[in-house]
Amino acid sequence: MTTRQSKFQAIADELGYSFGGEIKIGGNYTSIVRHGDTAYVSGQIPRLGSTVVVTGCAGDDVTLADAQLAAKVCAMRALALLAQNLGSLDAITQALRMTVYVQSSKDFTQQSEVSDAASGVLYAVLGEAGVHTRTSVGVVQLPKNATVELDLIVKI
Amino acid sequence: MTTRQSKFQAIADELGYSFGGEIKIGGNYTSIVRHGDTAYVSGQIPRLGSTVVVTGCAGDDVTLADAQLAAKVCAMRALALLAQNLGSLDAITQALRMTVYVQSSKDFTQQSEVSDAASGVLYAVLGEAGVHTRTSVGVVQLPKNATVELDLIVKI
Amino acid sequence: MTTRQSKFQAIADELGYSFGGEIKIGGNYTSIVRHGDTAYVSGQIPRLGSTVVVTGCAGDDVTLADAQLAAKVCAMRALALLAQNLGSLDAITQALRMTVYVQSSKDFTQQSEVSDAASGVLYAVLGEAGVHTRTSVGVVQLPKNATVELDLIVKI
Repeated sequence: MTTRQSKFQAIADELGYSFGGEIKIGGNYTSIVRHGDTAYVSGQIPRLGSTVVVTGCAGDDVTLADAQLAAKVCAMRALALLAQNLGSLDAITQALRMTVYVQSSKDFTQQSEVSDAASGVLYAVLGEAGVHTRTSVGVVQLPKNATVELDLIVKI
Repeated sequence: MTTRQSKFQAIADELGYSFGGEIKIGGNYTSIVRHGDTAYVSGQIPRLGSTVVVTGCAGDDVTLADAQLAAKVCAMRALALLAQNLGSLDAITQALRMTVYVQSSKDFTQQSEVSDAASGVLYAVLGEAGVHTRTSVGVVQLPKNATVELDLIVKI
Repeated sequence: MTTRQSKFQAIADELGYSFGGEIKIGGNYTSIVRHGDTAYVSGQIPRLGSTVVVTGCAGDDVTLADAQLAAKVCAMRALALLAQNLGSLDAITQALRMTVYVQSSKDFTQQSEVSDAASGVLYAVLGEAGVHTRTSVGVVQLPKNATVELDLIVKI
């Protein structure tokens, strides 16, 4: 197990979730597409198996802490998919762009604080290669009533 | 007419819409910008000529089926623009990323199902080259009260 | 001072704002990441120093004109960051993609008109190299109650 994989596993253990066996094959869209040394990762919601572990609206029925948990799970899912697709997290040479969508009430303005939790995961696992550009927005709904969705572009 | 163009035309016929003559030249933004072997397509709403064919809010005054129609029209517009800009749909070697924004009521959570209609168009026309990464979100409004807007990045 | 820098300064003077000293170093995300000849710019809100100069909801407590001012400030911030990171605005060879998020009321549908103000800044400063693809959406909230947030991808 490489250093990055160990760090990934430590966070998974801390969260108490398993991120194995996630890649869905087939269909007319997919989790990851590579283009040269760029990899695009589809929007991830905090789903583990068939369960979305954090649903609802930040600022309404979801606390900041729970929205941050959702963001962490999304980021871990994105990393799990990359590890499976690329063979190892070591293949990621730079995180380029993360866009974070937070299901938000009209008066919830802490989207950046939610995203910080996802950014923290990338940095904890990838180190300097995890330092990325980021956009955080508050949206009215997300698929399956997820609290957070994020997508990623990385250099491989 | 190539195979892809035939498939495109078959969907246009089925929808009962024409997608000719859409490229707007000039102004301070544009429909498509190429960078090496990547082409970026601006956000497309379901506009044909000067009419937005599906407007309003999914989950409120717009059904899932109508939102899916909107998504199809957006995807067809994106393909029409690419065909005109690149000379042929055959120039697309891989769809990389599609982001789909669905004007959604607070309790509408089927953004993925709306996007499936757009993904289906890409796959029907482009085959394996149409398999892309995707992000689907629910937004409070879109330009001209459009029900769906989507943008695209493709490899050419 | 190059032509582009002069044009940038003229707009800053007209707005009555200074865009110096904005780059935040360190942390687990950053303002700009370069990948080959592509530069990604993080989502910019209309913040100058520690003040967000336009806050609130377009169509509700914010007029179109004020939302356009917000969009201009965001675009100027993005250019200021690029100038500092790249050494000069002359290093930008093509704006590729701008995504504009407008904090919108349910019945505000002029997101494109808001974005026009940001597109105008890119074109005024960069000329033909500033012609970009664009997506404009209406979101329920943004970090710090900002009225507009935009991100950018450019060729360098």
